[in-house]
Amino acid sequence: MAVGLNEPEKLLPVTGVRSAAIAAGIKSSGAPDLVLFEMAESSRCAAVFTQNIFCAAPVVVAKQHLSSNTPRYLLINSGNANAGTGQQGIDAALETCSLLAASTSCETNQVLPFSTGVIGENLDLSKFRKAIPELVSQLAEDAWIDAGRGIMTTDTLLKGRSKQIVIDGQQITLTGVSKGSGMIRPDMATMLAFIATDASISQQLLDQCLQTAVNRSFNAITVDGDTSTNDACVLIATGQATHNEITEAGEQFHLLQNAVNEICEFLAQAIIRDGEGASKFITLKVCHAASEQTARQVAYTIAHSPLVKTALFASDPNWGRILAAVGRSGVDMDIDKIRLYLDDVCIVKEGGRSADYTEEQGQKVMSQDEITIKVDLQQGDAAATIWTSDLSYEYVKINAEYRS
Amino acid sequence: MAVGLNEPEKLLPVTGVRSAAIAAGIKSSGAPDLVLFEMAESSRCAAVFTQNIFCAAPVVVAKQHLSSNTPRYLLINSGNANAGTGQQGIDAALETCSLLAASTSCETNQVLPFSTGVIGENLDLSKFRKAIPELVSQLAEDAWIDAGRGIMTTDTLLKGRSKQIVIDGQQITLTGVSKGSGMIRPDMATMLAFIATDASISQQLLDQCLQTAVNRSFNAITVDGDTSTNDACVLIATGQATHNEITEAGEQFHLLQNAVNEICEFLAQAIIRDGEGASKFITLKVCHAASEQTARQVAYTIAHSPLVKTALFASDPNWGRILAAVGRSGVDMDIDKIRLYLDDVCIVKEGGRSADYTEEQGQKVMSQDEITIKVDLQQGDAAATIWTSDLSYEYVKINAEYRS
Repeated sequence: MAVGLNEPEKLLPVTGVRSAAIAAGIKSSGAPDLVLFEMAESSRCAAVFTQNIFCAAPVVVAKQHLSSNTPRYLLINSGNANAGTGQQGIDAALETCSLLAASTSCETNQVLPFSTGVIGENLDLSKFRKAIPELVSQLAEDAWIDAGRGIMTTDTLLKGRSKQIVIDGQQITLTGVSKGSGMIRPDMATMLAFIATDASISQQLLDQCLQTAVNRSFNAITVDGDTSTNDACVLIATGQATHNEITEAGEQFHLLQNAVNEICEFLAQAIIRDGEGASKFITLKVCHAASEQTARQVAYTIAHSPLVKTALFASDPNWGRILAAVGRSGVDMDIDKIRLYLDDVCIVKEGGRSADYTEEQGQKVMSQDEITIKVDLQQGDAAATIWTSDLSYEYVKINAEYRS
Repeated sequence: MAVGLNEPEKLLPVTGVRSAAIAAGIKSSGAPDLVLFEMAESSRCAAVFTQNIFCAAPVVVAKQHLSSNTPRYLLINSGNANAGTGQQGIDAALETCSLLAASTSCETNQVLPFSTGVIGENLDLSKFRKAIPELVSQLAEDAWIDAGRGIMTTDTLLKGRSKQIVIDGQQITLTGVSKGSGMIRPDMATMLAFIATDASISQQLLDQCLQTAVNRSFNAITVDGDTSTNDACVLIATGQATHNEITEAGEQFHLLQNAVNEICEFLAQAIIRDGEGASKFITLKVCHAASEQTARQVAYTIAHSPLVKTALFASDPNWGRILAAVGRSGVDMDIDKIRLYLDDVCIVKEGGRSADYTEEQGQKVMSQDEITIKVDLQQGDAAATIWTSDLSYEYVKINAEYRS
């Protein structure tokens, strides 16, 4: 199913990070569903969370803990989102942190909890109580693939990426895993990503680095516009590499930023490529816009149009639908100046069909698995790129199947 | 397919309005595709048009003509939207008005043109040239059903409604027809509605009356959030009734306003009931909001969520998805106060599942063809109601089928 995506053969260990995954019985399938990341004491940790006001209990607790102490552990369960569970859910998330603190030498607020899965069901704490000591005993540096699999729900593929760069003459490693896209089952909460590096970097720059990378990766993808209650992305820098700490936004920071961007874009795109029912991978570029914000607004309006998405599924070069979506985006524009391209084929200019466009040209591009739609607003210098998928029978099937 | 909707057995003539419909060969099926409404000289006409910047050529021309002269004719073709056709499309729309003016005794700018159908194809003016004289010769008072059928594209049912009220001791008639919902074929432009009454009313109050009715009817429905390039709604008051002209927003105006509201709500809901692939008719009520605008924002976020819509299709009481949509609506709210109801069943309160809610209760409501979802924000006194449909395999099928 996944469009142009294969599982990684290996993921590189990051000095200062150990992980483990076991089957705690939270998923009825018996697949691994409880994952632990341990960070060395020298580590700094940056995180961004869902903007959904109905954020899940673990998101509330993770934010509190992140602001009050230095994280040492990330505890992630799949199979149950612990969302829509009220105060009982908060208490349960705190209890999982306490259980982990008791099995290690850390404080409860040094554990960040994450959950993904069914909304509205209470966590069964007895499963955590039983599994956590064994989970801790299995921590190892070379367990990223296991960790990546443990956070999967109905992802069809493990999503992970490693990269090495050289800073200050030192080889630095970055490894990340992600899960999700759409709601994996009728009631699943979605996107999680965990990225680590052994680079040494100040907290302020680490936060900035993650925000920058997320804006152009995880915040630039959409399957169905449904922001989940549990989305989170964490970037760990263990500081175990021996280069001097990066404390300025100079050349070394940019090297690291670029590497984090690349990992995040790969992991974000992987979520789209493995999106629910996805048969196409679509890149939406809006250029020459008045501002990045308006460029994104136009791009998202196209990306969320069920009519555009079903035409993409049908490989139909139905540019009228794309134009209609551009026109209703709420962005002020001069329609006589807009140009619309499918890959390099110019379809629309001067408010109508380009004189030399033929349906055959459009059909040829549309038949591909990967398509770039470009809208040139001819207004200014800003641009934005986002990625999305088509809307297929399979999407409806996946999301209409009764919870079972 | 249509949910709880039947064709009207008859539609009442409105004194001062004549209409006709013929097959001009614009639709390849040979079905009626050219419709004419003639208004008596005493008539006043109010209209609202699509907010889409990429509005079609006939919308541009109709707006110009409406602002420069008193309309005498509405000329509507189905089968071709004359959208995305640039200057050539404008010229063609003007030419259809000239052709009609030549066959009647009116000015070109007394004709308002409307089109619905495929985007991006040029109108074949020879078909208009040939058909218009015959169309004019067939004008009759009792042809509303023919007119309603002539504006259909792939609507499965004729949508029309009549109502009579008494003003000033006089019996007043209102009749209206509408077409559309979603994009009827992969490249169709959508919603049109024409309503007429023989009431006598000032232009200012007629405009106000239509705007009020449209806000609570056509502007309160959504299938897929895709505003078409051709949407338009026209309200004609012929003034042929003998009561005194309504010039104040008093009791008589409110009688008329309520009747227009009722017709518009029926016609708007008919579009949803006959929506593409619709198997459910959903009423979304958001109450105790801080403002009507925020209430609508919450309602539309739920109505446009593919995850909510697929759950509705599956008759799955998946309240987690509804809650997630509420939470990402961008409206500030206190999540611990929100209550969520399916019909009269309270599912969520105090941020979590209601203690006495059972899945069986939710399942029972969800199994119905018509469902009301109510969100109580407990913030203020404002409320909004909108109507939508579910997202089915059939929707994807209809919109993915290659243009043929």
